[in-house]
Amino acid sequence: MAYDPNNIFARILRGEIPNTTVYEDEHVLAFRDINPLTPTHVLVIPKGPYVDYDQFAAEASDAEIAALVRAVGKIARAEGVAEAGYRVLTNCGADAHQEVPHFHVHLFGGERLGHMLPKQMKAK
Amino acid sequence: MAYDPNNIFARILRGEIPNTTVYEDEHVLAFRDINPLTPTHVLVIPKGPYVDYDQFAAEASDAEIAALVRAVGKIARAEGVAEAGYRVLTNCGADAHQEVPHFHVHLFGGERLGHMLPKQMKAK
Repeated sequence: MAYDPNNIFARILRGEIPNTTVYEDEHVLAFRDINPLTPTHVLVIPKGPYVDYDQFAAEASDAEIAALVRAVGKIARAEGVAEAGYRVLTNCGADAHQEVPHFHVHLFGGERLGHMLPKQMKAK
Repeated sequence: MAYDPNNIFARILRGEIPNTTVYEDEHVLAFRDINPLTPTHVLVIPKGPYVDYDQFAAEASDAEIAALVRAVGKIARAEGVAEAGYRVLTNCGADAHQEVPHFHVHLFGGERLGHMLPKQMKAK
């Protein structure tokens, strides 16, 4: 899939759409999900134009990958959820219902989360 | 939390417990979950003694982090799920029900997965 430069996260990165930034560095931007599923629900994205996890894993540099993984840990600590725990998740492609075609990681925390159960992984 | 060298994944890394390896390199081992929740359900772990995502993100090297992230992408392609899509997820700590105290990433795929919904993220 070719990268769509007008996807909503690309527009957020260009400052065309406001966001509630919680973290930013050379390679990464993180902001609150506008429809949070848990008390802490942050989206962490690379600044580079990667459509999905598959492309990020194949093409991003060591520095870009390490920056994104480390950013999630830093944000969890800053949000105060590192001690109690949190879930890190990314959906890649249609079978996982990826909605925005710019690679993004969800950070969920701030309450006791549900277990991963078969019915939660399988589509109805 | 101190690393427990007798956790089940440490024992798998030492060859004391059998596993169905699907990928291995200098930094990473990946094997099938013994209780798969989806047709493809692979666990991807660093060889280093990291308790959880928090410690991995804070202490692992760029090379270890990049190797793990890239391994998940390679495995998804080898499993034939990269085109249709997949979910990558890690649970860190008690609120997320992390069960084995060695950092591990779940790769889910091989069928249309459930949506992420509030009730799936929240404990009952």
